Amino acid sequence: MTKAPKIPEPTIERLAIYARPLEELVKAKIEVISSEKLAQMCDVNPAQVRKDLAFFGEFGVRGVGYNVEDLLRSIKKILCSDRTWTICIVGMGNLGMALVDNDNFKKRNYKFVAAFDSNPEMIGRRLSCGLTVQPFDDIEKTVQTLGIEIGIVATRPLDAQQAADLLMDAGVKAVLNFAPTHLRTPECCIVKNVDFTVKLENLVYHLEKL
Amino acid sequence: MTKAPKIPEPTIERLAIYARPLEELVKAKIEVISSEKLAQMCDVNPAQVRKDLAFFGEFGVRGVGYNVEDLLRSIKKILCSDRTWTICIVGMGNLGMALVDNDNFKKRNYKFVAAFDSNPEMIGRRLSCGLTVQPFDDIEKTVQTLGIEIGIVATRPLDAQQAADLLMDAGVKAVLNFAPTHLRTPECCIVKNVDFTVKLENLVYHLEKL
Repeated sequence: MTKAPKIPEPTIERLAIYARPLEELVKAKIEVISSEKLAQMCDVNPAQVRKDLAFFGEFGVRGVGYNVEDLLRSIKKILCSDRTWTICIVGMGNLGMALVDNDNFKKRNYKFVAAFDSNPEMIGRRLSCGLTVQPFDDIEKTVQTLGIEIGIVATRPLDAQQAADLLMDAGVKAVLNFAPTHLRTPECCIVKNVDFTVKLENLVYHLEKL
Repeated sequence: MTKAPKIPEPTIERLAIYARPLEELVKAKIEVISSEKLAQMCDVNPAQVRKDLAFFGEFGVRGVGYNVEDLLRSIKKILCSDRTWTICIVGMGNLGMALVDNDNFKKRNYKFVAAFDSNPEMIGRRLSCGLTVQPFDDIEKTVQTLGIEIGIVATRPLDAQQAADLLMDAGVKAVLNFAPTHLRTPECCIVKNVDFTVKLENLVYHLEKL
């Protein structure tokens, strides 16, 4: 693939969403899907699907549809999710525990290789996923030794900035922040926030229109 | 507000995202914001902000910007998030525990009024939020008695469909599903899925471009 043109952010987000039903279809051994059907499974309109995919070249055959496996492979390649990424998590409260056990991470080649917490009661605890909780002081060395590329912040809001700073100082370039707080980020790094209530507000909007 | 035209789904999603920094700005007593600045805070382009808001009428003054408080109030009205919603949660594992404690729900008037689990060890347990975990058998009566409008499914994947069915049979019209599995939904109900890895794939895409 040659260097892509500037792709709109929503297109990038939707590509990941298109990949979800495609994975299920591959498992179900379904070979071809129309843009209409894919759009319906993803809750967007078919023209949007075609427009999004057009950014990345020719997919599918008019009147027939997309080859499911090819399309999934292409999307993963575009998103760079066709390889394993090593990630670590800071904050092993309920949310952190839920994240390391979430099947979606494993399924999509995101591999947790370290877990950190500041609570002395948590440090040293062996998790069901096989990791042992390490103190914040270990972040720098562990990130560098294991070549960790992505950090997840799942701490309390008050500790989130410190957690992110430690990760980024250690060389992590990308942080996914689950703490309900805004993080300051240096230019060289990317932070994306996960806010559970965004989806909820979307749901409420549609509920009111039912 | 008169009945709105068909609003694209991404616009609805972005409105919730615009509301986030606006809430912070209100707290910081900042009165006016330009579309450029708001766009930057939300990681979209300014033309998109203006286009999204144009669906709902006239906001802001050309060359000056938007009145922060008015804009936030209008967005909340459009999204129907300007009132309290009663919600319940099914599945009180780590994720369920994290969700009932998440500040964003409280802050945005989503009120947990009941929590359910199928695990006998969890049933009857008193949570820090004040709720007591109830068995699945209580779902119908509790949903109806308390007039619960939205259900959150945070069970293991295998139990998610049963949880959603119980909620919808009891009269819940909207379900937010955190279990990494696809749910069958009757026409009369809405289900939205939260998939943590969608944001992660977005992050990875940008990381690769750094």
